Amino acid sequence: MGSVEQLTQEERDSWLRALPDWSLARDGDAIERKFEFDDFSKAFAFMTRVAMIAETRDHHPEWFNVYNRVEITLTTHDAGGLSLRDVKMARKIDALLA
Amino acid sequence: MGSVEQLTQEERDSWLRALPDWSLARDGDAIERKFEFDDFSKAFAFMTRVAMIAETRDHHPEWFNVYNRVEITLTTHDAGGLSLRDVKMARKIDALLA
Repeated sequence: MGSVEQLTQEERDSWLRALPDWSLARDGDAIERKFEFDDFSKAFAFMTRVAMIAETRDHHPEWFNVYNRVEITLTTHDAGGLSLRDVKMARKIDALLA
Repeated sequence: MGSVEQLTQEERDSWLRALPDWSLARDGDAIERKFEFDDFSKAFAFMTRVAMIAETRDHHPEWFNVYNRVEITLTTHDAGGLSLRDVKMARKIDALLA
């Protein structure tokens, strides 16, 4: 399954250029994005939509929330780093806010 | 409002004895508990119930989730530490699992 293969550095850089709101974390093994909403209700509504995407794709975020802030980190444990699954998931999450 | 006054150390110790699954964090300014579920679906279902309690009480957790694990930290920013609001919230959360 190509989808759980770790990205090469070249692939990674290429994909990241297409995800300008995400930044590399954990020495390049993860990507993260911070979100801010008007209040907790809106933040959690967003989280619920992300949870559904995660469950559908069987690819789950590491995430933190306090009140109106949500921080999402994506990595692929099976690949030991970033994979295309993270990139696709980031795109799906971004699309929620488009 | 007594509910946003910081707990004294004596009060804190007394309340904590009644919350054996929670431990002190941040030099006594917060309490935290770690939860583990069968899978993400169950973890997020729990989070959704906690979110409703939080919104109802206007008291929101700091929390982290990855797959089946949820870590909740409670503190009262307005009180600069632990308050009775945290204790009551912890009890409500515990009751979800009883």
